[in-house]
Amino acid sequence: MTHRDRRPSRRALLAGVAAGGAALALPRRPARAFGLPAAPPPPAPARRIGFALVGIGKLTQKQLIPALRTTRVARLTALVSGHADKAKRVAAAEGVPERNIYSYETFDRIVDNPDVDVVYVVLPNSMHAEYTIRALRAGKHVYCEKPMAVTPAECEQMIAAARKAVRQLGIGYRLHFEPYNQELIRIARERELGALKFIAATAGTVPDPNQWRLDKKLSGGGSMVDIGIYALQAVRTVTGEEPVSVSARATMWKDIDETLAFSMTFPSGLLASCVSTYAAHVSRVDVAATAGNFGLEPALYYHGIKGFRSDGKPFAFADMDQFAAEMDDFAVCVRDGKATRVPGEEGLRDVRIIDALYRSAATGRDIKLG
Amino acid sequence: MTHRDRRPSRRALLAGVAAGGAALALPRRPARAFGLPAAPPPPAPARRIGFALVGIGKLTQKQLIPALRTTRVARLTALVSGHADKAKRVAAAEGVPERNIYSYETFDRIVDNPDVDVVYVVLPNSMHAEYTIRALRAGKHVYCEKPMAVTPAECEQMIAAARKAVRQLGIGYRLHFEPYNQELIRIARERELGALKFIAATAGTVPDPNQWRLDKKLSGGGSMVDIGIYALQAVRTVTGEEPVSVSARATMWKDIDETLAFSMTFPSGLLASCVSTYAAHVSRVDVAATAGNFGLEPALYYHGIKGFRSDGKPFAFADMDQFAAEMDDFAVCVRDGKATRVPGEEGLRDVRIIDALYRSAATGRDIKLG
Repeated sequence: MTHRDRRPSRRALLAGVAAGGAALALPRRPARAFGLPAAPPPPAPARRIGFALVGIGKLTQKQLIPALRTTRVARLTALVSGHADKAKRVAAAEGVPERNIYSYETFDRIVDNPDVDVVYVVLPNSMHAEYTIRALRAGKHVYCEKPMAVTPAECEQMIAAARKAVRQLGIGYRLHFEPYNQELIRIARERELGALKFIAATAGTVPDPNQWRLDKKLSGGGSMVDIGIYALQAVRTVTGEEPVSVSARATMWKDIDETLAFSMTFPSGLLASCVSTYAAHVSRVDVAATAGNFGLEPALYYHGIKGFRSDGKPFAFADMDQFAAEMDDFAVCVRDGKATRVPGEEGLRDVRIIDALYRSAATGRDIKLG
Repeated sequence: MTHRDRRPSRRALLAGVAAGGAALALPRRPARAFGLPAAPPPPAPARRIGFALVGIGKLTQKQLIPALRTTRVARLTALVSGHADKAKRVAAAEGVPERNIYSYETFDRIVDNPDVDVVYVVLPNSMHAEYTIRALRAGKHVYCEKPMAVTPAECEQMIAAARKAVRQLGIGYRLHFEPYNQELIRIARERELGALKFIAATAGTVPDPNQWRLDKKLSGGGSMVDIGIYALQAVRTVTGEEPVSVSARATMWKDIDETLAFSMTFPSGLLASCVSTYAAHVSRVDVAATAGNFGLEPALYYHGIKGFRSDGKPFAFADMDQFAAEMDDFAVCVRDGKATRVPGEEGLRDVRIIDALYRSAATGRDIKLG
């Protein structure tokens, strides 16, 4: 049997996804008891979703692997790395069988591995498109780190590949699974403090000078694609709108943007002011509304996010693991045929806007969008 | 004797200012004791400098008059108001003789009043130029609230009038006398945390909907001339540079700017991102430098300013009265013939930049300066 034979048919997959989507739309019917309640059936053993991590860099080692020790649906089943020794060491420590270690050369054989449902691409940005498309062609669902890719065209190719393979493509927007950021969006969308009047978002970090992020061939950009994308996400998710015009100014470090100061205008007339920077560890979102203001600071770190609102109402949540939450959510989506809330289309929107910001900074002109 | 006869000659005044300026340049010589120290001479009775407040609005009543009860050199000696009853009531409460109350019609008679050394203009912005120039023509020194005036041309006329009258013209930039803001500037200028890489400043308030500030004929502009000017001042004083290019986007409330998001580039290549807004009470300055970051939040309020620096070193000062400090400083400058640190030329620089920001917001283009 060739590996092609083991792939589920396109028709079966489409039916599965459609059924999953349809099931979601049905209202939940409460259980009715007639006389004595029946004993509940024993729970079916939950199917866990196997994740292959592609790239064993800092994020994988420090965040994703520890998170996968705590996930309830996602589980680590494979590793893909160019460093065989590192991969073996990590695999042994995490109970991943040696047969489930791949190099970049043997990666496509993952098609034959039923232990792997999801390939999580944690590579340098310029490699996202290639490995996402190869994994989709191998019949795997893909979760890909942000930024989705380095050009809108690459993002479009990735989305097309997912459609063709009838597999899900999710982007690693961990803050969509983080309660402070979700509460910020809720306060804004429900107009709890009135209509929005203005929004400002700042996202900054100081990068390791030796990492690939400072090499434009690998990163595709500077602070904006790495950390400023969180400011962009904050503004887009809080407003629920897409910018119609952007204006940006940059300071450069070699050929990448060190700092990008940018503003965006939205169809409602709302104005946003944002900063992306590699000059400082800063992260903040400020939302001004007619009846008060609210926001987050820090806004985007792995732990320690804090919320504030001018009416003094509580804005606090227990600490949690954003990476475990996002991987479990994607695992549930894959298992149950539910659409992820962070699809490739969302990644493409950001990459398109970042492309416009870079063009504005380069030309000193406003760029119209949409 | 006409009032003209009582004015000091231009020659005498020039000599006084020159002597004061020269005295400032002399190094202080420490007192030397030979044998037993001599008993210090009794202090000469300090000459106090009489202030006339022009306009008895909220700032005058809530801040300036209370401050003048505590000043050591400045003292309240006259009031100018269009409301005779209010003026009489305030004068009685503050021990100002009734003969020292002026209306806008009788204002020019202040030339004959030796109790008044300084006229402090606390009127709506569009009246600053007229009353400043009339006070200077009456031989008085002038302290004028910010913004200095509503156009660069008006500022230039005010500066010319001060030169002609050989009187000092100071602008009410209270934060030049506020220790947190001065420490922020010191940390930046002495590069205590390394070379500057980026600066962001936000200044916002929610105005009283009934006040003159929302009437463009009186204010000359919206949030930017009122509160955003502090963000501009923060960036200019911290960097010690003047912007060479500005870019701004605005949202409008009727014919004034509600929110202005703007960036400025400086000769060193430094980029600043600023927000001015009438949508929220926010004030913050963030400075990123090579060895860390530092800033203020809140940055510009009358009380409760707080400093932060990423190296954890202390950044705290006792509470103080910014208005008492600025009036006493100007009084000492007038008394001793010292040049004020907040001259009309400083006010003009801001008004020119604000004019460029408004042109950028109106046209969607960068405006070059300098």
